[in-house]
Parts: sequence; C-alpha cells; structure tokens
Amino acid sequence: MSLTNSAYTELETRAKRIAALDDALGILGWDQEVMMPDAAAEGRATQMATMSKIIHEMQTDEAWDELLKTAQGEDLDDWQAANVREIAYDYAHATALPSKLVEPMTLARADCGHTWRKARHDNNWEAVKPKLEKLVGFVREAAKAKSDALGLPLYDALLDQYDPGRKSAQIDALFAELKAELPQLLEKVLTKQASEPVAVLPEGPFPVERQQALSLRIMEMLKFDFESGRLDISSHPFSGGATGDRRITTRYDEDDFTSSLMGTVHETGHAQYEAGRPKQWAYQPVGNSRGMTLHESQSLLFEMQAGRSSEFITHIAPMLREELGGSGPHWEVDNLTRVYQKVDRSLIRVDADEITYPLHVMLRYRLERQLMDGEIEVADLPTAWMEAMDDLIGIRPPSDVDGVMQDIHWYEGIFGYFPTYTLGAMTAAQIFASLRKDVPDVLDQIGQGEWSNLLAWLRTNVHGQGCLHSPDGLIEAATGAPLSTAPFLVHLKQRYLGEGC
Amino acid sequence: MSLTNSAYTELETRAKRIAALDDALGILGWDQEVMMPDAAAEGRATQMATMSKIIHEMQTDEAWDELLKTAQGEDLDDWQAANVREIAYDYAHATALPSKLVEPMTLARADCGHTWRKARHDNNWEAVKPKLEKLVGFVREAAKAKSDALGLPLYDALLDQYDPGRKSAQIDALFAELKAELPQLLEKVLTKQASEPVAVLPEGPFPVERQQALSLRIMEMLKFDFESGRLDISSHPFSGGATGDRRITTRYDEDDFTSSLMGTVHETGHAQYEAGRPKQWAYQPVGNSRGMTLHESQSLLFEMQAGRSSEFITHIAPMLREELGGSGPHWEVDNLTRVYQKVDRSLIRVDADEITYPLHVMLRYRLERQLMDGEIEVADLPTAWMEAMDDLIGIRPPSDVDGVMQDIHWYEGIFGYFPTYTLGAMTAAQIFASLRKDVPDVLDQIGQGEWSNLLAWLRTNVHGQGCLHSPDGLIEAATGAPLSTAPFLVHLKQRYLGEGC
Repeated sequence: MSLTNSAYTELETRAKRIAALDDALGILGWDQEVMMPDAAAEGRATQMATMSKIIHEMQTDEAWDELLKTAQGEDLDDWQAANVREIAYDYAHATALPSKLVEPMTLARADCGHTWRKARHDNNWEAVKPKLEKLVGFVREAAKAKSDALGLPLYDALLDQYDPGRKSAQIDALFAELKAELPQLLEKVLTKQASEPVAVLPEGPFPVERQQALSLRIMEMLKFDFESGRLDISSHPFSGGATGDRRITTRYDEDDFTSSLMGTVHETGHAQYEAGRPKQWAYQPVGNSRGMTLHESQSLLFEMQAGRSSEFITHIAPMLREELGGSGPHWEVDNLTRVYQKVDRSLIRVDADEITYPLHVMLRYRLERQLMDGEIEVADLPTAWMEAMDDLIGIRPPSDVDGVMQDIHWYEGIFGYFPTYTLGAMTAAQIFASLRKDVPDVLDQIGQGEWSNLLAWLRTNVHGQGCLHSPDGLIEAATGAPLSTAPFLVHLKQRYLGEGC
Repeated sequence: MSLTNSAYTELETRAKRIAALDDALGILGWDQEVMMPDAAAEGRATQMATMSKIIHEMQTDEAWDELLKTAQGEDLDDWQAANVREIAYDYAHATALPSKLVEPMTLARADCGHTWRKARHDNNWEAVKPKLEKLVGFVREAAKAKSDALGLPLYDALLDQYDPGRKSAQIDALFAELKAELPQLLEKVLTKQASEPVAVLPEGPFPVERQQALSLRIMEMLKFDFESGRLDISSHPFSGGATGDRRITTRYDEDDFTSSLMGTVHETGHAQYEAGRPKQWAYQPVGNSRGMTLHESQSLLFEMQAGRSSEFITHIAPMLREELGGSGPHWEVDNLTRVYQKVDRSLIRVDADEITYPLHVMLRYRLERQLMDGEIEVADLPTAWMEAMDDLIGIRPPSDVDGVMQDIHWYEGIFGYFPTYTLGAMTAAQIFASLRKDVPDVLDQIGQGEWSNLLAWLRTNVHGQGCLHSPDGLIEAATGAPLSTAPFLVHLKQRYLGEGC
C-alpha cells in the first residue's frame, strides 16, 4: 500500500522526531549518572529541561488532532493501526496535563527530590514534609486533569502513564489474592529456612576489577551485545541509553559481590528487552517496550526466574570461585543457593526477597491511593507507613529512614508506578511458565550457561511485539491466558517450599 | 533598566534555548568519540541530525527579524548591544544558507568524510575524488549564497563562519609577511640544530596508566577544574563538552609520551578558554568564545608559548622521570628541550613544529581559495599540493596519503578554517608578549609550576571578554595593537635562534 504524503506518513515523521530527542535525552541521562563532573549538574538540568519542553511542545501540537483523525481513515495494516493508537495515546496524555502545571510541577519535583536526599540522610521527615505536601498538591491536580481528560478514575489516570490500560480494580483483585497467600507463605518459608543450614555470605574483600570481570563474563553468557551497549558504574543501578545503544550500570560493594552480580542480571534483562524491540519500528511508538509491568517482567524473568534458579547458581558457582578467588564450603552451590534464596522480613523494599517484595508494594499502593483520594494527607504518612508495615510484613521500622523516606518515587512525584513491580513479578512467572512449555529443558540449558533459546523465545513472543497489543493483550498473546497470580504463587511454592517439584 | 517583556528579553529567551541544545549536542558529540559502542553510530547520527535540524529551524524563524529590529531601538548596555549584534550575526548566517541545501550538503559531508577514511587508509585518491567533487559543488553553492546574502567576497563568506569579520585581504597581507621570513628562518634553524646534539626520544614503553597519571598531574598544575571537567581517551584528541562541563581527550602512544603530554597542555588551553567565559552571559551568544582564531590562540599560548618554553620543560623534567620511571641523559632538561623544540621539514601538518606549521597552512589557504574561486578543480588538487609543498617547504610527499589526503577538513566540507591555525599562533604570541609586559616574571612562575597569574590575566583580558568585541577588537583591546606578525616572528627567532634573549 502506498502511503506517501498520507496523514499516516506525516504522523511517522513527527513521531520519529520526538523519539530521536527522547533517545538523546536517554544518553544525556546516562551521562548525568555515570560520567558527568559534579559541578555540571546545573548545566545538565538546563539542557534536559529545554529538550523536555521542546518535546512537550511537539507532543501537544494541535496538528496531531487532524492528522490522527485522517490517518484513522486510511488503509493501514495492524502495526500501522497500532502505531496510530499509540500516537493518539501519547497525544492524549500530553494534552491532558494543563500547560501551566508543567513547569511548577517540574520545579517542585526537583526541589522535593533534592530535599529528600538530605532529609533522608539526616532522618528528618519534617524537613521534607512541606515540599512533599506541595508536590502532592500538584500531583493531585495533574491526576484530576488527566482523570477528566481521559475519562479514568483518578488513580487509574496515574497508573495509565506507566502501564497503559492498567486499572486499579484489576490490581485490587490480584493483590487481594496475593494478600490471602503471601503472609502465610512467608511464615512457612521462614520456619523452613530456620530449620536449614544458615546462609553465609562469603567473606571479601572482592576488588571492583574482579567483580567487573565477573559481571562482563555473565553478561556475555546472557547474550548482551557489547557492540551495542556498555556496562558502567553508578550509585543507583539502571538500564538506559538509546535505540541500538543499551547501557546498564551497577555498583560494586567490596564486601558483598552478590548484589552487584544479581543486579547485573536484572539490568541485563531490561537491556535485552530494549535491544529486542522490532527494528523495523524503531523511532515509532508501536516499536517501544510495552510499559513498566512488561519491562519489570523481563528484568525479573532474568533475575528471579532464571538467575536465582539453582540451575543458574550451580553453573556460575565455579565461575565465582575462579573470578573472585574463593574457596571453601561457603563457595559451594548449596550455600550460594541459600544466599540467593534467603527470605527475610525486610524493612527495605530494594533489599527484599521475592516473597516479601509484593507486601512492600501493597503497602505503597495502599498509601498512595489513599493519598490521591484524599483519605489521608502527607502528614499522616509516617504513622500510616508504620501501621501498614506491621499489618503486611509484621515488623515496625525503627525510624522514618527505614519507613516513609526509604524510596525516592513519591518525592519525585511518581505515583501509580509501584504496582508495576509486583505485576511485573507475576508477569515474569507467567511468561516463564509458558516459555518452559515451549522449551521444556530451558532450566537445564541455563544450567549449562546456554541462554540463546530463552532469549529467542522472548524476542519472538515479547520483545519483538513492541506495542502491537496492550500490556495485558501482550501477556495473553504470549502465555495464552490473562494475567493472574497463579503462576507466581506456584513458582514461589516450588522454589521456597519445594512444592510440586 | 527594566527590560521585562522587551524584545531584547525575548531574544535572550530564544538564544538560551538554542544554546542549551548546542550544549546537549556537545555532550552527545563527546560521547560519540569517547564512550559510544560502535554499532550505535547510526542511532547517534539520527539523534544529532534531528537536533541540528531543530536548531536550524529555531535559528531561521522569521520572528527574529522583527525582534532584532525592535531590540536595536531599546535601551541596552554594551554587553546587551553586543549580544544583539551576535544574535543578528547567527541569524544572518543561518538564513543565508538556502534550506534546500542543508540536507543534501549534510549527507554529502557524511558520505565524503566516510569515504575519505577508507580512501586514505588505502591511499586511493580516485575513490574519494568524485565524492569531494560533489561536496565542493555544494560548498561553492553555499559560499555563493552566503556571499550574496552577507555582501562578502566568496571566500570571506566562508572565513566568516569560523572567524567573524575575518577578511582574506588581511590574511593575504599577514601571510605574505610570514612567507617573506619563514623559509629563510627554517633554513637557519635547521642549520643551527644540525650543529647541536641530536634530540633523542626517551625509550619506552610508557604504560597508558602512567602517562595518564602524568597528564592529570600537569592538568592540575594548569588549573584545570576537575569538578567541572574530565580527561578521557579518543582516537582524535579534542576539547568539547558543554557549559560548566569541559571535557578534553588525548591518545596515548606507549612508545612516545611526548605527543600526548603536549596534546594535553594544548587541549587544556582550549578548555580553560571555555571555562573562563563570562558566567553572567552563559547561554547567550555574547558569552561565547570569540571564534577559531582566538580559540587556537589559547591552546597555542598554553602549548607553544608556555608549554614548550625551556622554563616549563625544566619544571616538568623531574616529574616525567618520576611518573614514567625514566633516568639517564635522555631525561635531562637539555635533551627534553631539544625534543620539544625540534624543527623539521615535515610532510604532515599535525606533526609540524611551529616554524613549519604556518607554511602548511599557507598551502591549504592557497589551494582552497583557488578551488573556491574556480581557478583549480578537485582533480587538480594532488598535483597542486605536491607543487605547493615543494615551493613552501621544499619537499614533495611520496604519496597522496601524505599529501592531499592528510587532513579531514575538506572532506567534511570545511573550507575557510585552516587560516585560523596560523592566525591563532600569531595571536598567541602577541597576547603572550602583552601578558609578559603585565606579569614580567610569568616564565619564571611557569618554571615553578605556578600558572595562576597567567590564568588570571587571560581570564580578565581574553576569556571573560566573551564576544563583547570582534575577534580583532578583542586582540587589540588585550594587546594594545592590531593583530600583526611581529610578535610571532620575534618569538620564533628568540626560541629557535636565540636572538634578542
């Protein structure tokens, strides 16, 4: 079909322009965390704010209205039609936010995020409280505007930014199922692990260069393409970069190699998703990764489903001894598996195991919904946090540093994002179960350091699908069933209780 | 004076936006040379082309016309008026180029530059000739358009892009003076050096880490601010980055530490110029560095005036021995000074000493003017090059690799740039002579590793002046005299013949 000079072609041209600027922002953001000298922060903020503003102007250009209407009447194939849908989605979100909110909200985010860093360091909730109150005011206003414009409930309008089409009613149902199972499961696993040999962290120090060599070796195994990517160091590990340029970071603790190692596996999962996006749809919204639930599913499939499996740990144990110079009983597979599968009532989300983690997420989901709905106020958060921790995980943080101030998200105005961590964990389990049906010996393959069949399956069924479907549509297409808690719960019971093995 | 809502304020707002994007391009360009994985080149080209196009659209926005006219009637101080002049200059250059030329010329540049790399490697002039012919066609067309729009002679319209206000008539006169002196001076110096002990390059290998430690130590001495900058490795050394974020690169030859060392001094001179631009005029054209002649004057002041002085070499000699583990007669000051002050009939511009270098530049100036004026064609270049080399330097290149194909400039469509190298060398000598009048013991200070007075003088008289004056206006304000060949020739005769010491 010839679409030259069609409205659709014009949509593609405009979308590519925005995507190229987004890619440039990706590199600038990476540089900011990894390379930038400290005193350049203000200049970088100027560059990135200017580019974001230009992108926002492009996204809210009224010309989209007419182009979208015309293109929808043109003769499009499935991918093109999905591309129009995604462009319309981006336009709807961009225009839903009143222009007058954009700049003060950006400033309030920066101010609150900056204050949080210091307040957290000083364990001083009162210092950040007024900034968060101001920011939450803006977020509520933005949520109201988006809710009105998109015809979505308030909180769903926030969710929709990170996981298009996601509804809080669905999350309520799924999380209720998890809530009915996880606390008892946690009890059982804690009891079981208490009866087993203690997991002992091998003793360091482990020089950074050796850990780095190990990370690079494992990334090679995971088919990371170093011709199109890099591994570097940053204080907060992330996966970033641009089209055809995947960059992940880690941080090395000389006393504990385990976190950077599994962090690298996690970020490689993110990077492989980006690397596997459909190349013929590069720079088009339909060629993007499919929101945060799917993104987290790929990092967690790598880390939790494959990476913490006893097959993987069995395979890498000799590598660890070799690269890190370890020897003795703590370096044997049994102990290393116990280390990587240790379960705890953790205070801190980012350190939590995969059973406790969803309880952390439920806490944040509960509080941020109440906050958005006006059922609680910012001033109520510290106490509400303590009570919810007690209710969900059965411990109380000794201070706000380990409580309400532990995560950056709210202090940067990010509400509606937390659920995607646990939806991602569920999705990872469901996708991995499907993958195992198609590639029955995939865990044996992983046990031999062979990741190509795993990756090929994901390329076909997930990565290469871009945004052809909705997030839930993609999950259903890849697994033959709607997103559910069952595969995740089965996985947890298998791994931690040995059920059904 | 209150200028809120004035046309001038609007000019500043628009100029800042462009400057912030230029800064972002600076970081992307740095990353491309220093960090980017190979396979990301296409994506990076897309990002940078998109941003360049957006900048071009901003620069050619018709709104500037009216704003510039109105602002010129507003009550402005000297800096504001100069800022308006610089904005008008940028607008005039941007609009002078027909829009239809921009894209094909960008493609022809990329194609020819790319072909040159391979053709140079293969010593295959015929492979790159047709690409250069096509590109020169575009450059001639662009020069014609700029000449018409700006009311300048053809070649002067090209010069003006790199060195605003520079005229070929002035260069003709200055270069004629150099041509009258340099060939004989070269003869004399060669004779003198032939009668002296041979300069011996200390024998390596010199591991990269040691050379790097040495470079960092010397950059510290030269007051490079590592809170606002970095040193890295790239295959072609450069100074780049963004506002408040100065990044220089070098390359290390394990058999020869001398080039990376003096290269670092050179690039630090460029970086210090950028770092010293007036902070209150950041993101405004009047706050920029003052064109390529002035820029090169700062790198050459650091490298040639200060860095190759016997005072500097005397000071760093023990440092070299310490950092590189050298000992013996080749590491003594006398030999190291001979190494750094060695003169040769060099075939290659970038390896040339400061006496031969201007002769290289004159060759390129002569040929590129003839080419632009249609007196010669691309096909004539190889022979014309050989003849000019013979005439100016007295040697003939054995092949085109060491002849017409040695520099990338023409193959990337850069014509009118070469003269700034030698104008920069002259300017460096003239500025340094003035500096020595105000700080009479500056060379003794350098001999003690003390660069702060030198830097403070440059900050006040050059770096901090931004674009308040024209390039020649800045030179005259800083030195009390118009740009001339005299201080440069005095410098050469002092250093290489010991005259007037």
